[in-house]
Amino acid sequence: MTVEQRHHIVIIGAGFGGLEAAYRLRDMDADVTIIDQRNHHLFQPLLYQVATSSLATSEIAWPVRHFFRDNKNVTTLLATVTAVDRANNLVLLDDGSKVRFDRLIIATGASHAYFGHDEWEEFAPGLKTLEDATTIRRRMLTAFEDAERETDPAEQAALLTFVVIGGGPTGVELAGTIAELAHNTLKGEFRRYDPTRTRIVLIEAGQRVLSAFPEDLSEYSKKALENLGVEVHLGNAVSVCDADGVVYGGERLAARTILWAAGVKASNAARWLEAEADRAGRVVVDPQLRLPGRKDIYVIGDTASVMDTEGKPVPGIAPAAKQQGRYVAELLMAEHAGKSESVSPFRYKHGGSLATIGRRLAVIDFGWIKLRGAVAWWLWGIAHIYFLIGMRNRLAVAISWLWIHTKGQRSARLITQGKAGVDKVTSGVSGG
Amino acid sequence: MTVEQRHHIVIIGAGFGGLEAAYRLRDMDADVTIIDQRNHHLFQPLLYQVATSSLATSEIAWPVRHFFRDNKNVTTLLATVTAVDRANNLVLLDDGSKVRFDRLIIATGASHAYFGHDEWEEFAPGLKTLEDATTIRRRMLTAFEDAERETDPAEQAALLTFVVIGGGPTGVELAGTIAELAHNTLKGEFRRYDPTRTRIVLIEAGQRVLSAFPEDLSEYSKKALENLGVEVHLGNAVSVCDADGVVYGGERLAARTILWAAGVKASNAARWLEAEADRAGRVVVDPQLRLPGRKDIYVIGDTASVMDTEGKPVPGIAPAAKQQGRYVAELLMAEHAGKSESVSPFRYKHGGSLATIGRRLAVIDFGWIKLRGAVAWWLWGIAHIYFLIGMRNRLAVAISWLWIHTKGQRSARLITQGKAGVDKVTSGVSGG
Repeated sequence: MTVEQRHHIVIIGAGFGGLEAAYRLRDMDADVTIIDQRNHHLFQPLLYQVATSSLATSEIAWPVRHFFRDNKNVTTLLATVTAVDRANNLVLLDDGSKVRFDRLIIATGASHAYFGHDEWEEFAPGLKTLEDATTIRRRMLTAFEDAERETDPAEQAALLTFVVIGGGPTGVELAGTIAELAHNTLKGEFRRYDPTRTRIVLIEAGQRVLSAFPEDLSEYSKKALENLGVEVHLGNAVSVCDADGVVYGGERLAARTILWAAGVKASNAARWLEAEADRAGRVVVDPQLRLPGRKDIYVIGDTASVMDTEGKPVPGIAPAAKQQGRYVAELLMAEHAGKSESVSPFRYKHGGSLATIGRRLAVIDFGWIKLRGAVAWWLWGIAHIYFLIGMRNRLAVAISWLWIHTKGQRSARLITQGKAGVDKVTSGVSGG
Repeated sequence: MTVEQRHHIVIIGAGFGGLEAAYRLRDMDADVTIIDQRNHHLFQPLLYQVATSSLATSEIAWPVRHFFRDNKNVTTLLATVTAVDRANNLVLLDDGSKVRFDRLIIATGASHAYFGHDEWEEFAPGLKTLEDATTIRRRMLTAFEDAERETDPAEQAALLTFVVIGGGPTGVELAGTIAELAHNTLKGEFRRYDPTRTRIVLIEAGQRVLSAFPEDLSEYSKKALENLGVEVHLGNAVSVCDADGVVYGGERLAARTILWAAGVKASNAARWLEAEADRAGRVVVDPQLRLPGRKDIYVIGDTASVMDTEGKPVPGIAPAAKQQGRYVAELLMAEHAGKSESVSPFRYKHGGSLATIGRRLAVIDFGWIKLRGAVAWWLWGIAHIYFLIGMRNRLAVAISWLWIHTKGQRSARLITQGKAGVDKVTSGVSGG
């Protein structure tokens, strides 16, 4: 006598894509298991604000299992996936246990890429997880503290030089916020140096910042950064990154704090699946976001290489991951109801591109209209508060921002976990 | 030709005592240097709420230097003190530098004491620093997560057993809040066990909890804890504490999470000063809180052994430390103005003793009146919000509490810094 097992959908990764898929599937007549190596969903678009002391960690992260409290068919597991057994439809976990699936959705995100220089990670942490953010926060705040004790002028100057590598949205947002932290928030708080002397250097190998935006918005953003006191260097890649600083364009710049915002690579999904991957390690999927040749394995979000209707790659941003999560959930529900023929290929709808420059300005490209300046900043702020999960977090973030903008004070200027041996960047894949 | 140096007061430790002293001295015609090994002042009375996911770290900690932003004679240094050179009036720092002082105030607080069983610390972390709190938070939340994956019933039961050692205010507050976390907040969020089955065991070697309170309040608190589902065991000390759990009263209790709230010892000040210390390591001071035989070295707060007017030890609580910080500041200002003869010995004024039991009940002993129940809890809440520093934190904590009490949801359920090698308790002295 065999008991028929209920249809089981397994989702690896509780980022934007995986969480959206689980949410859409929550009332389905099937078992859903969502596996993540962290207990929290992270609102990554605001992670740079944790790194720069503007927001508390808990304001942008929520326990995954709480979302599914009332959905008894959804099980949440805190676990690290070590492999996928394609032949037997099993997900292998770090404790040796195995999870059988009928359908698998892989949404394990991306981590930093150092373009063949993994040894740079030690000196130039990237920003993907809460630990990354508190590591960067600790390093930055500690540099300002150490400068107060430093008597050697050259060493003090190196402590007060912050290098951000990469001129995409994360690099621009980090550089602008560090400039405000140093030049406004910390103003007057030190006795042996003037924090307004702090140098913030943004290095971008390409010819402009925010290269995904129209050229005039890039130019506007560069000028806005320079008005904030950021030195923007274009056209030269960093060739050395070490404990003393960086070398770019053949010149050495002494800097104790270097932040990496230059590149990402996809998670291990392609290796798990022994699948074809693009240059960034993303799994090449079919128009239904499936592993080619398999009707039961889906890959979405930053882990998947997907093209839009014009043949351009779908960007690695939260709305794209959410659209894919929703698409796959609807496809699985239709299939389960015997209506899979009716599902058309995934079509990405680009809502717009946003980036902030410091606390008063932003650029937005909706395609049909471009915005910049204070109006764009207000839209950016409202949109981000809206997309935060739960009224409590919306209120908390709104208050944190109100204080920053009226008092110039940041609520989370904490140096924590600073003991020897702890100052290793805990990178790795942020999703699954 | 010699330049006369300005009068220099050095304060080690930015806890309640040191911060109060620096604050009172901030407008004095002298240089003041405040040294702490952390960049933040910590509101320790609410630390158990960070450990139990109720508050964010940044809601109870503030950068020390920000308090003195407008007081140009006050210098803040993030540094660890390694020794005090009594003969030459120098404070030695970890980077080898030396700070000369005319007057020294030592306010370096206390850390956990394991009564000769330092090896227990690994298994039973105490609660003195933000890192301690996030460590405890991580261990507790991880135990609930691991229980969801555990198939062995005995191991699952051990994961769902939380032992709190010590029935003072911290132990009572921890046990009550863990009970509410397990039985209310997490209710319904797990699929493979029922978190309301969680056992919370409070072990106190003495004959009652809250032994500093009147007996009827102790009895009331014990009943209130039991109503919350806490098992209260009195009269037996723990004799073994290891990875499998604890032994008390000759019986072994399997528990994966053990918290230490049983004892504190003073910081290293007595060793620095080669001074007489009491059993808890506190420096025995004269009636003016000075190191005996020295008119220029003061020891205050949890680091000092001070008697009240009735000859009883002054308790190691925040109001006592603040009173001492204020007293020493006034004494130093009077002395600097040539009026030191007029300063009478330190007299401790006991405002009252407070402890909460879960989220609705508290006990307060004002001496002239005793309160218990919901009224005491409201008073406790209002007092703690009032004593928080800054409107922004008062607002943030008020909102966090509002959410807990209306929605039952905790805002900071985050497992962070969970990588191998990071799960070491960073204890040590919390103050200087």
